[in-house]
Amino acid sequence: MSPRRPPITTQASTAVFTQVLTQGPVSRVDLARRTGLSSAAITKAARPFLDAGYLEELEAGERTAPGAGRPASPLVVRADREFFVGVKITTEDLIGVVGDLRTQIRASAHHQLAAGDVEHVVGALAELVDELLARSPEYRERTHVMGVAVSGDVDRATGTVRYSPFLGWRDVPLAELLAEATGLKVVLENDVKALTVAEQWFGEGVGLSSFALVTVGTGIGCGLVIGGNLVAGAHGVAGELGHLAVAAEPACHCGGTGCVEAIASTDAIVARARLVTGSPALSMEQAVTGARGGDPLLRGVFDRAGHAIGLGLTAVANLVGPERIVVSGEGLAAYDLFEPQIRETFARQAFGAAADCALIIRPLPFEEWARGAASVAVQSLFSGHAH
Amino acid sequence: MSPRRPPITTQASTAVFTQVLTQGPVSRVDLARRTGLSSAAITKAARPFLDAGYLEELEAGERTAPGAGRPASPLVVRADREFFVGVKITTEDLIGVVGDLRTQIRASAHHQLAAGDVEHVVGALAELVDELLARSPEYRERTHVMGVAVSGDVDRATGTVRYSPFLGWRDVPLAELLAEATGLKVVLENDVKALTVAEQWFGEGVGLSSFALVTVGTGIGCGLVIGGNLVAGAHGVAGELGHLAVAAEPACHCGGTGCVEAIASTDAIVARARLVTGSPALSMEQAVTGARGGDPLLRGVFDRAGHAIGLGLTAVANLVGPERIVVSGEGLAAYDLFEPQIRETFARQAFGAAADCALIIRPLPFEEWARGAASVAVQSLFSGHAH
Ligand SMILES: [Zn+2]
Ligand SMILES: [Zn+2]
Repeated sequence: MSPRRPPITTQASTAVFTQVLTQGPVSRVDLARRTGLSSAAITKAARPFLDAGYLEELEAGERTAPGAGRPASPLVVRADREFFVGVKITTEDLIGVVGDLRTQIRASAHHQLAAGDVEHVVGALAELVDELLARSPEYRERTHVMGVAVSGDVDRATGTVRYSPFLGWRDVPLAELLAEATGLKVVLENDVKALTVAEQWFGEGVGLSSFALVTVGTGIGCGLVIGGNLVAGAHGVAGELGHLAVAAEPACHCGGTGCVEAIASTDAIVARARLVTGSPALSMEQAVTGARGGDPLLRGVFDRAGHAIGLGLTAVANLVGPERIVVSGEGLAAYDLFEPQIRETFARQAFGAAADCALIIRPLPFEEWARGAASVAVQSLFSGHAH
Repeated sequence: MSPRRPPITTQASTAVFTQVLTQGPVSRVDLARRTGLSSAAITKAARPFLDAGYLEELEAGERTAPGAGRPASPLVVRADREFFVGVKITTEDLIGVVGDLRTQIRASAHHQLAAGDVEHVVGALAELVDELLARSPEYRERTHVMGVAVSGDVDRATGTVRYSPFLGWRDVPLAELLAEATGLKVVLENDVKALTVAEQWFGEGVGLSSFALVTVGTGIGCGLVIGGNLVAGAHGVAGELGHLAVAAEPACHCGGTGCVEAIASTDAIVARARLVTGSPALSMEQAVTGARGGDPLLRGVFDRAGHAIGLGLTAVANLVGPERIVVSGEGLAAYDLFEPQIRETFARQAFGAAADCALIIRPLPFEEWARGAASVAVQSLFSGHAH
């Protein structure tokens, strides 16, 4: 097997490889139909991937209808041709995975952080990568790129964390530091955007021109795909569903008032639960247990949060009308408590046919954040933004 | 002059003609840079437009820098090569214009409707068109397409008014009826979307990849351009800024609660002004006069409306981050009363750099709606959706 990576430089090669990667196996006939390319152009675009072992042809007829005139030669990705590391950084820990070309998780590891300063995190992250790659000679040999996901304002092009409030970092050239420490190429992305890429390529967003991913937890975020592209915002801000005003109170840390995040983030729910129960030390777990047990005050806290989230979702549906909205995040571990109110509010406030937008509400295993980071690393095969 | 219309069938010819139409005069060198096409491809794409008289070349050097090496041969549109009728239909009247290729208004007319049923409106509209075209033999000879703008749910592809609450129409094949009655090809579009096209091509949106147009009046609407394309919504709904929930009350005709439109539409403002002053017959004009005179109760009504509009604008800025938002509409005839509160709320609720989005707040002459319709007719040169 050649160690060479295929050059993805043309629109045709990007289109062909993306189709096979995200929706393969695909016959050449279907590829021609979906990409609008001639079959000669498809053969030309696929050739370097076949040569480098990233794509292979299924046996003629293996996936085609019996009696089909000419062999449809379906193309499929060789998922283990290259591996990618994905790491999510939080204030408390690092979650790392090794994924294949289709971002299927092959290995995962977890590292508790002793400190939150950049130097310590970079060192710990290098150790975590070393531990992951040591698990198989294949990983060591065929891993070239790592994706790293961080919450906050991240500049993917320069690999810089411009501002991460949770980590307390400003203007950290993280991709460069991590590339030096690990020897891998590094792609840095905002965590919600990274998750959205994973969903677009290998999840609920496959084949859709528009969808939204909303995450609920410590913060409330949103990745928005319109016309097949992740919306970035002309001024670098987009998807800030957490800071839509949906109520007359309370004040939010952003300076606004009545933000979704000020009502439905984990901290906001805990604060409200303590207030309504008069128990200043109540934990999230206790609030969940109490609400599940039927405590009307605590149920009211989750209903209020679900209502705020539901109004945020209708803002997305009424303004941009995506095909589908996925609502997820670690805050939805208790999604049974939110879901009825989210759906009720959405049904009432969505305008006309906007209510046809499918809502998919589900918890998010924490490892998925790292998988999102790995999918951004896969994406670097195309965009080239790796350091 | 040949009566032949140029065939616009390729991406290259669309790109070249759109550039010259919306941003001309443009030199061939600049065209190559902006479209990414070779100069041979540009010459080939421009040829049919030059032959048919839609484009012309400025004298070499006329618009170029002195001493420039080779003649830049700027291309410019011959605006009077074709004319387009644009008509806006409201419950009370028809506003019609004749516009040229750049949608500059050449003639306009107004017709009070005696009834609102489809048959009467079609007849009255045919008369209005006849009156407009009779004003010049040029118009009669060189007008082939009419754009018609209607509020509500309009299917441009089939030329059908699916539902217009204000007109009380459902499933009316209006484009076909009007084509029969006038002999023109007809393009039907939602009125806010039509205005957005006019703004994108010949107004504040020229050259921008993303912007929003928000209209305030009887209804509150929004046209959203992202990645250069008007957002249509996967389920046919998008830009429904009027039905974002920004407050806990009042109930809205859409079934939702606290909608922007339920607070800031003309009817909502009048109803509120009557309520706070205890004057059940107060008119909008009286409310405006009173507020301008400093009546604190009436000022409060406009502040409340401005605050709701401001929250709607921040939802757009925080979610999709357009470069610019234009706020307009007949409701903004009194924009001096709204503007301070709109800007204050926007500055406070926009998230971080989303506040850098420029707000352009201005009144909208009613003729502009008809101009929007005419711009959709010009657009049919490309999209071909005319009946
Ligand atoms: Zn906020
Ligand atoms: Zn409403």
